[in-house]
Amino acid sequence: MAKDMTLLWGSGSPPCWRVQIALEEKNLQGYNQKLLSFEKGEHKSKQVMEINPRGQLPAFKHGNIILNESYAACLYLENQFKSQGNQLIPEGAADVGMMYQRIFEAQTLAQKIGDVLYYNWKVPEGERHDSAVQRNKEGLKAEMKMWEGYLQGCSGFLAGKSFSLADVIIFPVFAYFFQNGGSEERYPNVAAYFRKLKDRPSIKKTWPPTWSDGRGQEVLKDI
Amino acid sequence: MAKDMTLLWGSGSPPCWRVQIALEEKNLQGYNQKLLSFEKGEHKSKQVMEINPRGQLPAFKHGNIILNESYAACLYLENQFKSQGNQLIPEGAADVGMMYQRIFEAQTLAQKIGDVLYYNWKVPEGERHDSAVQRNKEGLKAEMKMWEGYLQGCSGFLAGKSFSLADVIIFPVFAYFFQNGGSEERYPNVAAYFRKLKDRPSIKKTWPPTWSDGRGQEVLKDI
Repeated sequence: MAKDMTLLWGSGSPPCWRVQIALEEKNLQGYNQKLLSFEKGEHKSKQVMEINPRGQLPAFKHGNIILNESYAACLYLENQFKSQGNQLIPEGAADVGMMYQRIFEAQTLAQKIGDVLYYNWKVPEGERHDSAVQRNKEGLKAEMKMWEGYLQGCSGFLAGKSFSLADVIIFPVFAYFFQNGGSEERYPNVAAYFRKLKDRPSIKKTWPPTWSDGRGQEVLKDI
Repeated sequence: MAKDMTLLWGSGSPPCWRVQIALEEKNLQGYNQKLLSFEKGEHKSKQVMEINPRGQLPAFKHGNIILNESYAACLYLENQFKSQGNQLIPEGAADVGMMYQRIFEAQTLAQKIGDVLYYNWKVPEGERHDSAVQRNKEGLKAEMKMWEGYLQGCSGFLAGKSFSLADVIIFPVFAYFFQNGGSEERYPNVAAYFRKLKDRPSIKKTWPPTWSDGRGQEVLKDI
């Protein structure tokens, strides 16, 4: 039981979801949690700001130790609970290297998805340009092609022959891509990876509740 | 000796520098290395692309294991050489948590510095707006104030009482801020942290050679 942990989260946010998956994998159930609404602005509420002054979700703490950055939370949980639940850092140097390399490349992937999805939210109306929108789309296509190559002949996991932090961290990003209309046909290796992992217990149990009705808006359908 | 490692790097790049610091701290000297010029476009050269298809520096490999993402390289080196050189992950859970949390918050800091420094390089001429420039500056000021608060009463290290991966990764970002004209007066805690660490052997030995003539352009002087 993980009663000394608290997670404030939002549905469908890859950063929140990866912390939930890591907690399940490390067998840390029973933590305090609260689902908050981005739409209602609850990520800027007092209860969030007290843990995360940046006003972002996840807001996560273990006792008095605060880990709001999702990558930080995942690495911390593996570091502090090495022998509990599933080991999430592979054994061999090659797999360890691949795991870290992919984890950090995925930040570029997530950023490029965000550049397309949130353009109108990030850029004030008077500063918007069709040329930027187009460039962002091309950037995401190139990035997705790179990952499609990485997943050629994939065994089902991103680093080595077992589930690792690379999967904990990156699976939600690919899921987010498809949820927002990304094409399974143009990225068959990514889609195959997605399908292989989507029913894993830690993932299925934490599936974003707002996604239960199927795909969201098809914003990424041209990518 | 680390003859099975190769680092292609550029002077003054915080991502390159942190890998050099990590190598020194882990007592991994004697690696193959080559200083390349961003100005001459050498980061897009064949020798870089063979290791790093993204055409970015650092390009780093250990044997056949490729770690081009600087955070990945640092975490990998600590993971694979735990008992060699200085231990870069603290002992206690509180310090471990603080280390990871700060490391990932620093990505926001680095991004906000980049938003200001590289605006004209990133944004095509016809898409530039003074309002965006101003917003980026305000964003960096707010971020720096946050770090100024974090470093209130700092013992000299970012996480706990000893040098850790947080310092390896974040020191070069603060150094970069000051090198580009950032104010030591407005951020005295950050400046004190910078001065405490700048003569540490691993840092001094790897100081960017192009910085030896003093500060660069004062682009960040208003921040």
